[in-house]
Amino acid sequence: MEPGGREVGPAVKAVAAVLPAGGSGERLGGATPKQFCTVQGRPLVSYTVRAMERVSWISDIIVVVSPENIETMKSIIEKYGHKRVTVAEGGITRHRSIFNGLKLFSENGFSNHLLQKPEVVIIHDAVRPFVEEDILLKVVMAAKEHGAAGAIRPLVSTVIASGADGCLDHSLERARYRASEMPQAFLFDIIYQAYQQCTDYDLDYGTECLHLALKYCQINAKLVEGTADLWKVTYKRDLYAAESIIKDNLSQQICIITDVKEAVVQVGFLLHESLRSQLKDKKYATEEIQQLVDMLEKSDIPLLHPVVLISVHLNSSENTSFSIDLEELTRMKKFAREVKRKNILVYGLLLQYKDYFPLQETVNSAAALTMALIKDRNPELTGQLLFCRLPSLKR
Amino acid sequence: MEPGGREVGPAVKAVAAVLPAGGSGERLGGATPKQFCTVQGRPLVSYTVRAMERVSWISDIIVVVSPENIETMKSIIEKYGHKRVTVAEGGITRHRSIFNGLKLFSENGFSNHLLQKPEVVIIHDAVRPFVEEDILLKVVMAAKEHGAAGAIRPLVSTVIASGADGCLDHSLERARYRASEMPQAFLFDIIYQAYQQCTDYDLDYGTECLHLALKYCQINAKLVEGTADLWKVTYKRDLYAAESIIKDNLSQQICIITDVKEAVVQVGFLLHESLRSQLKDKKYATEEIQQLVDMLEKSDIPLLHPVVLISVHLNSSENTSFSIDLEELTRMKKFAREVKRKNILVYGLLLQYKDYFPLQETVNSAAALTMALIKDRNPELTGQLLFCRLPSLKR
Repeated sequence: MEPGGREVGPAVKAVAAVLPAGGSGERLGGATPKQFCTVQGRPLVSYTVRAMERVSWISDIIVVVSPENIETMKSIIEKYGHKRVTVAEGGITRHRSIFNGLKLFSENGFSNHLLQKPEVVIIHDAVRPFVEEDILLKVVMAAKEHGAAGAIRPLVSTVIASGADGCLDHSLERARYRASEMPQAFLFDIIYQAYQQCTDYDLDYGTECLHLALKYCQINAKLVEGTADLWKVTYKRDLYAAESIIKDNLSQQICIITDVKEAVVQVGFLLHESLRSQLKDKKYATEEIQQLVDMLEKSDIPLLHPVVLISVHLNSSENTSFSIDLEELTRMKKFAREVKRKNILVYGLLLQYKDYFPLQETVNSAAALTMALIKDRNPELTGQLLFCRLPSLKR
Repeated sequence: MEPGGREVGPAVKAVAAVLPAGGSGERLGGATPKQFCTVQGRPLVSYTVRAMERVSWISDIIVVVSPENIETMKSIIEKYGHKRVTVAEGGITRHRSIFNGLKLFSENGFSNHLLQKPEVVIIHDAVRPFVEEDILLKVVMAAKEHGAAGAIRPLVSTVIASGADGCLDHSLERARYRASEMPQAFLFDIIYQAYQQCTDYDLDYGTECLHLALKYCQINAKLVEGTADLWKVTYKRDLYAAESIIKDNLSQQICIITDVKEAVVQVGFLLHESLRSQLKDKKYATEEIQQLVDMLEKSDIPLLHPVVLISVHLNSSENTSFSIDLEELTRMKKFAREVKRKNILVYGLLLQYKDYFPLQETVNSAAALTMALIKDRNPELTGQLLFCRLPSLKR
């Protein structure tokens, strides 16, 4: 399996992706369609687009949105710097939206922006942000061979048919059936032909592309077992889950910077090192922090997710009271409030450090606090100066 | 519909509930079965048991667990003070476990603790903690009338059948089918008879109680549309979602205590009031906090979920620096660490307050910080003294 590169296997000439994002999100019970709900300040659809554009062998990504959301979608693409993305206008149903997306590649296309017709097209929901290159590759290769392919998962619940009286008619044997998930992939000519031939009834009431390929092109799609992370954000609880997964993933990425030297290593070890390196007890909003913020602003990182900056200060004085300069703390809070607008979360950490304290304990305690700040990314706590490891001051 | 009381409608004599909790949780990818995974420090099964025991007209709750988890389950019941709960030993499959649970009520029971046979029995999964009284009442009343009843939900994904070659055979029309969820309810005699008659194959490979009632007793169960919160905790993402929902629910419950006078009102209003009431600038670990902790410990509240205690201090001095007594702060942290073991999270909030500051702004800022602390319940931040609203000190 190839991790990247322009070719997917020897024979697939070009791969494009169509992301239907026209849903109204009524099941979520909110006014905002779920693909535009924000997770860590960023719309869900942007995560899904990012998952697609990370894959170098996908040449074009078409996002199909309802007419009223075209400007919103364009501004999301601009704000988050997405590449290779074209916005298409959706129809009133899912199938009509996908068909509109596919038309951008066809010779009979209604748009001025005729895109290069792909050999294989991926269809993937905008509300499934955790799709990996691995499964995309699998469905593309299977579609190349079979004409159509789709990811499947085991059923979580038993499926039943109800009679006209609202009572059980029969239940399906769970093991014999699967849930049809996304991504799916098709030879472009197959799925386009299916859409051209299908009835208005199919376009209005159908939802399943694999079904169209079977009905109109006699293609029995290859089914590919997917992983649990292909799930679709449908309900509010799914947004909660998405947020936790994203926070979890982000909190794996820790970058410790000591005097503007950069390294990505185990947090405990480096905190230890930074303590040893005898950081001076600088004021709260130091020049270094400002430099880092400038560097971050020049990069795309704070756009894609909130960046946590923790300014570590050492207090090694022998006094039993610690004087906080309120003016200085006010500046720190003001600074934190300003950079929060730029999606950078600044926290202060004051390490009480004495030669005769057990160093490892202090480090462990600081690491736990640091991890908690990184994991939670709580915007309300920015600008706070947190105290770390204040054991009894008696020698 | 009756909110409580011993009777459910005139004719249902007794209602019991059986919660199969024998699953191995292999889909979660962890060693701990999901019903025993902790959410906010408390096992999921305890939330589900609590949801059942809140309903006064359910007389007995049977939790069926695998033999190796009997002691764990008993200790959960003891620790969280659950009432009306009996632990039963599960079989090697879901159906065998439910059957074992039902046997506790039968005259041929294998147990010494023969319980009063209910007219209607509810069957509900231990991993569906958000079940409400409303749906329980609906399925019980429907079971009384029809012999069997179960909650259903619309399908989230299209269901497909695959052929022997791993390719699509056909897809089901989504609108004609439903996902069978829990709770389900049965006339006891119906479901018990079904289990007594059913084959080893059914006991070993079946999963659906409604199916048994149909197959062996010719009962077409009444299907009741449930709400989205009936979902089953299946994957790790579901645990994340459960945690967020529980945190969300908890953060609706705010109790502000001013000088040990208690009231549950809008947080902003009371913070405002507490400011007005000219709380003295007490030391951090005050007697009042200790009294509250004592009161809480005597109640069951900290057992059921982490309690947040925020100690609010005012600083109204005119100095531009604020001296923190490190000994005092150390005591505060130590105190916080101790009560954390008792599931009580203590935070300090220092309000910088001057007559010439805009009061409402200070209050809003304090309320936002308070809400964030209550919502997150971050155990790593206990014992911290957070500063609130330090506008420029210039007049």
